[in-house]
Amino acid sequence: MVKEMLKRYSESIDKEIGATLSTIDPSTLCEASDHLIKAGGKKLRPALVVLSSEAVGGRNEDALKTAASMELIHTFSLIHDDIMDKDEMRRGKPSVHMIWGEPMAILAGDTLFSKAFETVLETDTKNVDPKRVVEALKTVVDSCIKICEGQALDISFEGKLEVKEEEYMTMIYKKTAALIAAATKAGAIIGGGTDEQIEALSEYGRLIGLAFQIQDDYLDVVSDEEDLGKPVGSDIVEGKMTLMVVHALANASSEDKERLISILNANDESLVDNAIGIFNKYGSIEYTRNIALDNVKTAKELLEVLDDSEAKESLKLVADFVLERTH
Amino acid sequence: MVKEMLKRYSESIDKEIGATLSTIDPSTLCEASDHLIKAGGKKLRPALVVLSSEAVGGRNEDALKTAASMELIHTFSLIHDDIMDKDEMRRGKPSVHMIWGEPMAILAGDTLFSKAFETVLETDTKNVDPKRVVEALKTVVDSCIKICEGQALDISFEGKLEVKEEEYMTMIYKKTAALIAAATKAGAIIGGGTDEQIEALSEYGRLIGLAFQIQDDYLDVVSDEEDLGKPVGSDIVEGKMTLMVVHALANASSEDKERLISILNANDESLVDNAIGIFNKYGSIEYTRNIALDNVKTAKELLEVLDDSEAKESLKLVADFVLERTH
Repeated sequence: MVKEMLKRYSESIDKEIGATLSTIDPSTLCEASDHLIKAGGKKLRPALVVLSSEAVGGRNEDALKTAASMELIHTFSLIHDDIMDKDEMRRGKPSVHMIWGEPMAILAGDTLFSKAFETVLETDTKNVDPKRVVEALKTVVDSCIKICEGQALDISFEGKLEVKEEEYMTMIYKKTAALIAAATKAGAIIGGGTDEQIEALSEYGRLIGLAFQIQDDYLDVVSDEEDLGKPVGSDIVEGKMTLMVVHALANASSEDKERLISILNANDESLVDNAIGIFNKYGSIEYTRNIALDNVKTAKELLEVLDDSEAKESLKLVADFVLERTH
Repeated sequence: MVKEMLKRYSESIDKEIGATLSTIDPSTLCEASDHLIKAGGKKLRPALVVLSSEAVGGRNEDALKTAASMELIHTFSLIHDDIMDKDEMRRGKPSVHMIWGEPMAILAGDTLFSKAFETVLETDTKNVDPKRVVEALKTVVDSCIKICEGQALDISFEGKLEVKEEEYMTMIYKKTAALIAAATKAGAIIGGGTDEQIEALSEYGRLIGLAFQIQDDYLDVVSDEEDLGKPVGSDIVEGKMTLMVVHALANASSEDKERLISILNANDESLVDNAIGIFNKYGSIEYTRNIALDNVKTAKELLEVLDDSEAKESLKLVADFVLERTH
């Protein structure tokens, strides 16, 4: 249902993105910049911009430039992250640096980043107050700084096993939720929302963004390989910090804590069940799921400041979708 | 003389840059982002913003945010270029990726990029019309896209020895001159310049930016090792495309052309004098110098649309400085 709803917006968003990318020269840079966008993706962030704008009474077409910019920033961060993490595949295709090499991949990311700001600045100020364009742009820029900070925090967690829950939440807020919050906030700004509406939609975005990442952590141990598209417990094998790990390490006996740390350092698939056993013993899986549930519940309640509309209902569906997805 | 003039502005510019970088968290990212800025640099681009603003009657303090953004963008591009080109040293210090590794260096660049836009957006709209802030920002964003395109073009020239002069000029315009043109144009916009003044200062910036790069090409063969800080003819040894190479290849006999191509591919210091011999035979060194001279002359003439002021005289000094420098 959400997928059909997202599809309704994707054509006009794709057109907007296509128009801005088509002018990139030389062609190698253009192709490298366009590769991941062409490879697909749900276009969740741009849809959230348009929905948030509509939910406060704005016109769909006025929000399209800012919507496109969200996908450009999301794609920029994926390209650079793949270089940093040496990930060879993305969206079922070789990542940009695998095809064009690291220098061109760095440049493709930088280009998309610049194009994102250019696109917001092209918002027609005959229909949208220039002050709102500046405010929307501030929101977008702020989320970009947070994405960089979140990725740096994530890198700093590597090999560190005493991450506090608060630090972990800050990391996933900056790395994932900040851009989603920027999408809903910028949409509300462009759509002409009141301060109260803008604040509510911004917070809605932050909460579903957090729930989105926490659900990712959760699915790694409760989903199955077919749905996930990768083996259950991959995060455990990779020794990745997740909310379950943070919770278990904070609550386990010193013996279990040591066992969990050695499992996370072992890079051994046969130990996944042992880790899940520890998570279960301390209620870490349930704890994680509950935080995601709470966030989504609060996010939906926040929407009540808005007048009833189709867009408002769609935003509720998106919030539910965050928990319903199985991969 | 120019150095003293630049120094006059550097304190307030440094303060502005320091303020925006100080909020970056975590500290590793903050240090990596600040490293090259701390290492020094002439701060030519930010000074050009302030001078251009003053030259059209603007207030120094209103242009400082945009001035700072220029140095942030310049530094962002240096950090990413050093990764791409595998350059280990910059401004007499190890480059960012040599100290913090490539992932953190990519992020430091991305952070400075974001911070640059944030800084322009913080311009006080009580003193500067918001429309002018948006126009200045468009100018800055446009130059960022060009920097990426210019670097991609430069990469595409590697191993290619049939670069036309027009292609070469497009490359150095995008890679080097566009940001200098953005500095003078954005300064004129923020300072409240007329369309005629903005256009003249933008073109002045483009011309001295081109002359700056062409002078670099020229110095590689006419300067001495002591002044350059590197051996004479390094560009030739590295097989780099320069205006002299472009000119010589276009004008040499097929025999000399083949000789020059084999020298550029040889990576052999002992062949530098042979290459210079070919350049001299076809007047390529003089040709290069003359283009730089012409650009600076025209740039200075363009300033005549401005009323007389100290800033205008300083801009003339900067134009001359481009040709006077020996490294």
